[in-house]
Amino acid sequence: MLDLSLLPDGGLGWLDASGDQSDVVLSTRVRLARNVEGYAFSGRSREGERLRILAQVRDALPAVPSLSGGVLVRVDELDADDRRLLHERHVISRELAGAEASGGGGARGGAAVYVGDGLGVMVNEEDHLRLQAMRSGFALEPALAAILRLDEELGRRVPYSFHREFGYLTACPTNTGTGMRASVLIHLPGLVLTKEIPKVLVGLQQMGLTYRGLYGEGSEVLGSFFQISNQTTLGRSEEELVDHLASVVRHVIQREHEARRVLWRDAGYIIEDKLMRAYGTLRFARNLTFDDAMSLLSGVRLAVGLQLVQGLSVYTLNKLLIYSQPAHLAWAEGRELTEAEGDIARARFVRDTLADEMGPVQ
Amino acid sequence: MLDLSLLPDGGLGWLDASGDQSDVVLSTRVRLARNVEGYAFSGRSREGERLRILAQVRDALPAVPSLSGGVLVRVDELDADDRRLLHERHVISRELAGAEASGGGGARGGAAVYVGDGLGVMVNEEDHLRLQAMRSGFALEPALAAILRLDEELGRRVPYSFHREFGYLTACPTNTGTGMRASVLIHLPGLVLTKEIPKVLVGLQQMGLTYRGLYGEGSEVLGSFFQISNQTTLGRSEEELVDHLASVVRHVIQREHEARRVLWRDAGYIIEDKLMRAYGTLRFARNLTFDDAMSLLSGVRLAVGLQLVQGLSVYTLNKLLIYSQPAHLAWAEGRELTEAEGDIARARFVRDTLADEMGPVQ
Repeated sequence: MLDLSLLPDGGLGWLDASGDQSDVVLSTRVRLARNVEGYAFSGRSREGERLRILAQVRDALPAVPSLSGGVLVRVDELDADDRRLLHERHVISRELAGAEASGGGGARGGAAVYVGDGLGVMVNEEDHLRLQAMRSGFALEPALAAILRLDEELGRRVPYSFHREFGYLTACPTNTGTGMRASVLIHLPGLVLTKEIPKVLVGLQQMGLTYRGLYGEGSEVLGSFFQISNQTTLGRSEEELVDHLASVVRHVIQREHEARRVLWRDAGYIIEDKLMRAYGTLRFARNLTFDDAMSLLSGVRLAVGLQLVQGLSVYTLNKLLIYSQPAHLAWAEGRELTEAEGDIARARFVRDTLADEMGPVQ
Repeated sequence: MLDLSLLPDGGLGWLDASGDQSDVVLSTRVRLARNVEGYAFSGRSREGERLRILAQVRDALPAVPSLSGGVLVRVDELDADDRRLLHERHVISRELAGAEASGGGGARGGAAVYVGDGLGVMVNEEDHLRLQAMRSGFALEPALAAILRLDEELGRRVPYSFHREFGYLTACPTNTGTGMRASVLIHLPGLVLTKEIPKVLVGLQQMGLTYRGLYGEGSEVLGSFFQISNQTTLGRSEEELVDHLASVVRHVIQREHEARRVLWRDAGYIIEDKLMRAYGTLRFARNLTFDDAMSLLSGVRLAVGLQLVQGLSVYTLNKLLIYSQPAHLAWAEGRELTEAEGDIARARFVRDTLADEMGPVQ
């Protein structure tokens, strides 16, 4: 089993709710897609080629200053549970994990990730390299600065595929240009409850942005958690793209706060009841599906935002989201869990965590 | 406003959960319908006649030994809230309260109730007199003994309408004969959850018994609370009718316990989750409709029966059922409440009561 303690911050530094607006924005992520010159794109490369790419970057990565103290994890050598664990932690993508959902039965040969402090480099993902920076809260500019520095340092050691006209070349044309995708994971229960969210989402698309659920492309929107990111990667600089995203997200945050005020003014009693019931359910339930937990945790997060529940930290709420996922529960219990066992373990984990922070209930 | 402290036991002695099987059987009630010779039945009597009946029994009642320490309440002089309060306490019937549901806009002239310790005599109900005995738990024989003694003592002072062949004459022919209706208020969540209840209810009817919801004829079955009573009043003695009812109810109680065992064995985790969520909801909800409260309290009652919740007394559960009714909430708050205010007051009352007994939650 993977020893997560070897990873800087366990790969979870972004969870600590220390960032800006962290009651609404859980985390910020910026990633760059890069390919190494002289090889076919991952989709068409054979295992031997992928292993040569890995060997090449493996030599380069430890020398990159941004990644000092980092660790290389051979994803292709992990079992399915460990790959799922890293995916649930947002350290690797579903693609790299070779999860069932993306068609693969396991990670392909050469799949690896180099984990630094708030930084990661996936190797042999859809592109040869996926550089990512994760930050707590709303932190697009710092994340961009970190990833650009990493990119510059790594680019000095690894020759990237670059085209003078198109920019960075990528396996999927939608990434070509900057190869950048910047995203914020944002909690918008106010806009969902006031039913304003469809308008907001249409507005995002009109402004060249896109949204997804908590687990990336194709994942459902659960518990009012949205990932908002740039759609375009071409024709504008990284700074411009990030500035644009940041200004739209700032506007969305403002609208979320307005929605909460309206909700509280017009339906305070109903909302208080709904949220406190969600909290009561989490404190007493004996069985929680993941979807159920997400939805209830979303309610409690809003309750904390509205100061209906006091003394419960946003950090604990973030931790509950991550650690109540199936692979994390199995990891905590030290054994594989059936779905039914997972639901029981999840309910117990949530109860115990809340009891630790809020005191026991009887 | 009516001073309930003047009533012996507040009319609520039967609530104390001291009786047999009181976790399953909330209360036992036996009532006798009697009419006074020389007057038209209530439905056809004028106010003058009703007042003469009242005057006549009013002189007789204080002299009845079973009713010593009793109090006469002129229901026709109470306002609607107080009438509702007595109805919610099962001290007077909906008919006597002149509730909207029975077509009347208020109690008719001469409507009164004489309240003794676990005993009551309604005057100018559907019949001139309705004698009732209430007991905690499953106590048909003691309730019958008490009501027969009261009947005998009162019959010596008031001439009853009696026919040698038919027995006691009553306004509605279905009551003629003994004029007796014996009933138990029973909680059957096990049979409801295992879906066995329809079979049980059909069986009751085949054995000459009938069932209703918590508030008598026409009331919905809420929270798995059923009133089971005799259908027949004619052709058998009071003792035979009560023996028959008692033996059927004993059988139903046994089947309820079996259903709970099966439920626990086959779906323990699911049931525990469902019941603990109900408990958690009651501890945290800010808004509770009466139906909602009944259904959740039903769950918690089962949780106490299964020892999932420990330290919560059946008496408290009984009290919550009675005191979370609209008129009781208004009485506790000392003012009229809109339905929305009532729902908030109910949630607060339930939370406070549970916190008193189980300790605070945060």
